[in-house]
Amino acid sequence: MNLYEIILNKRNGKELTYEEIQFVIDGYIKETVPDYQVSALLMAICCRGMNERETFDLTDIMTRSGETYDLTVIQKPTVDKHSTGGVGDGTSLALAPLLAAAGVTVPMICGRGLGHTGGTLDKLESIPGLVTGLTKEKFIAQLQTIGCAITGQTPNLVPADRKLYALRDVTATVDNIPLISSSIMSKKLAEGTNVLVLDVKVGNGAFMTTLDDAKILARMMVSIGKSAGRNVAALLTNMSQPLGYSIGNALEVEQTIKFLKNEFNDNDFSDLVYILGGWGLVLAGKVSTPEEGVHKLESLVSNGKPLEKFCEMIIAQGGDGKVVDKPQEVLPQAKFKKDIFSEKEGYISGFDTRRIGIAALELGAGRITKEAGIDPAVGIVLGKKIGDRIEKNVPLACMYYNDENKYMQGMKTLLSSVKISEQEPEDELRLVYYIERGN
Amino acid sequence: MNLYEIILNKRNGKELTYEEIQFVIDGYIKETVPDYQVSALLMAICCRGMNERETFDLTDIMTRSGETYDLTVIQKPTVDKHSTGGVGDGTSLALAPLLAAAGVTVPMICGRGLGHTGGTLDKLESIPGLVTGLTKEKFIAQLQTIGCAITGQTPNLVPADRKLYALRDVTATVDNIPLISSSIMSKKLAEGTNVLVLDVKVGNGAFMTTLDDAKILARMMVSIGKSAGRNVAALLTNMSQPLGYSIGNALEVEQTIKFLKNEFNDNDFSDLVYILGGWGLVLAGKVSTPEEGVHKLESLVSNGKPLEKFCEMIIAQGGDGKVVDKPQEVLPQAKFKKDIFSEKEGYISGFDTRRIGIAALELGAGRITKEAGIDPAVGIVLGKKIGDRIEKNVPLACMYYNDENKYMQGMKTLLSSVKISEQEPEDELRLVYYIERGN
Repeated sequence: MNLYEIILNKRNGKELTYEEIQFVIDGYIKETVPDYQVSALLMAICCRGMNERETFDLTDIMTRSGETYDLTVIQKPTVDKHSTGGVGDGTSLALAPLLAAAGVTVPMICGRGLGHTGGTLDKLESIPGLVTGLTKEKFIAQLQTIGCAITGQTPNLVPADRKLYALRDVTATVDNIPLISSSIMSKKLAEGTNVLVLDVKVGNGAFMTTLDDAKILARMMVSIGKSAGRNVAALLTNMSQPLGYSIGNALEVEQTIKFLKNEFNDNDFSDLVYILGGWGLVLAGKVSTPEEGVHKLESLVSNGKPLEKFCEMIIAQGGDGKVVDKPQEVLPQAKFKKDIFSEKEGYISGFDTRRIGIAALELGAGRITKEAGIDPAVGIVLGKKIGDRIEKNVPLACMYYNDENKYMQGMKTLLSSVKISEQEPEDELRLVYYIERGN
Repeated sequence: MNLYEIILNKRNGKELTYEEIQFVIDGYIKETVPDYQVSALLMAICCRGMNERETFDLTDIMTRSGETYDLTVIQKPTVDKHSTGGVGDGTSLALAPLLAAAGVTVPMICGRGLGHTGGTLDKLESIPGLVTGLTKEKFIAQLQTIGCAITGQTPNLVPADRKLYALRDVTATVDNIPLISSSIMSKKLAEGTNVLVLDVKVGNGAFMTTLDDAKILARMMVSIGKSAGRNVAALLTNMSQPLGYSIGNALEVEQTIKFLKNEFNDNDFSDLVYILGGWGLVLAGKVSTPEEGVHKLESLVSNGKPLEKFCEMIIAQGGDGKVVDKPQEVLPQAKFKKDIFSEKEGYISGFDTRRIGIAALELGAGRITKEAGIDPAVGIVLGKKIGDRIEKNVPLACMYYNDENKYMQGMKTLLSSVKISEQEPEDELRLVYYIERGN
């Protein structure tokens, strides 16, 4: 097989065969195919597209590029949830123990923050002592004893994605639906979960800013999952404002604990956790409708079992279990906190959500470069969300910071990302736009 | 400036600025920009295009990437001819001494064979002792004393093209009009010629197979030349059959000598040499019309001066001047020659010209891989061309070869590339389709 012809075929809009895609991916891992040929092919894919069959094949080949986890040893249904990334989206932290308490097993292999979005691993690691680099054996053992585990991708899990992702990240070939789908789904297929609930974020804080693009992505991922024999649904959910109120690593852990203590209810964060969890239970065959699932999960939270599960998981992964009782004593705390106010009165009519993510990143909550560290303590707690009344003397948000210069930068970014109007916005925000279950 | 943004902009179909293109090219030469980012950008250019302004800028930046030759020391007009590549296209070998004999200076910096097409350097080097790697000083000195020189690109001349071409060649980004134009024109601008006649080949033996594509390429190159203050015209000429009768390195040198001795006239090779030369003299201000130029060049050939020039040039470049008198004694000769015949009678209605080039390559006249050597002696001499009557006992062509296996392969390829019909073809072949002189 000839790599030149493969690249030329894609450049000319032709469909690639399984064997051609395999030739590229296998060669890239074995280093017989150089970076510069793969990046040319990736750009041709971005410009000319790939159809469903090619995307299935790419996903399959990527999945098989390293070891895969066989979770059939676990007697319970396995359920994972994956989000395409947003601001303040800490639902995974809450869902893992919640679903485990509901009697399913939750094998979560997660990533770190990317661009303006936060990452589950970064958030969880703000708990002192906690490790997220579980070996395959430790991961499966913890799933069997506790019912949930949150870990990072090991070097042997989908090595093709690791290499391709790093290359896409520097060649402007990230935001392409077949490439995004195969990247996400290859990791989830290799992880071995049977049920997968996909949270496809839509809006100005998400990578997909339009409902149309998000639908295409959702359909593609659901199709890939079904073709691989998994039970998958995708919810298209609102990311036109941060989810919940906290943005920042330790701050989001604290918010999760509040939720698990049943002290943080009736907001978009808790609503979304329940809906995603409800769908997980439907797909796992535990309940008949998502509403039934939501009801079941709500009563679990009120009786405290999910909080116990959370504590068990933290301790099993080396973390300090006291975080559950005294989060502010255990979690790293920022040296300074300051309320910020609006100069204008009125109603919040919108956010530039991506910029709110950037504001948190500027405070130190995210990575400026790939290699940079993060500050787990810093972040933002919003005081108001879309539709809320703003008065000059009521704080818009509270900033948690360790560095005055970073505060100045983040504060300016935050203030510039809030839209205030005189009229109260008429339309109610929908949390879930659409549910994709495939054919 | 940010390379990621530059690639993304081109992927999204945006126009790149001079500074952005310069950032890429300069960085690539200095090795601060890696191959894999350049190949992604090249593919984005192939998929999304570049406009005239971007192509001018790319050409200018490439031209300035190394040393440029200043030919203003030469008191005579400088005239070069460049062909986009074809089969049997040895016109450069004839034109250099012919135009020098007509009183202009001919600075030819040429390339080697590429794919199915032959290269002027390879042909010239079949003359024993002849060197084509002239230094800048030697090149200019020879132009001043003899009036013509044919040499290869030195490492300092347009190094950006050298690097980009090698990368395009392995990433399926060769056949793109802005990239082809900037590659050809940067070398011609750096070489310093004032007049340039472009021979844009069209047809099944050329890289441009349609007249429309060839016109776009011709217009782009003429525009680039004019914008750089050069006097440029492009002739779109027929490459739906090999030019002349000989295909192969020494064989084409021998044909050129026959032409310069005025023993090879009234054929498409001699016609094209005169027309291209006539246009060169028009652009150089030596004659008023191409017809006048053709007439002048024809009388020069009949009085023998161009043959003397050819001999002087060969000797100046270290070659054996006796080649002019006794070509078959001096030039390398194939061990075997065999006539091949058609099984069908009728008229030649067409050739698959690219495959005829491949047949010569299979005999050893071209390179199978970049590093491979070539056999200067082997090749094909056609007995018949389009429109000619074919009888079973009259040879279609004569094959010159050194290896029986290569003969078998080349012979089969050649026979399969000849189309024979019962009727005599009605349409006369046009040699020149179109002349592009710009605005």
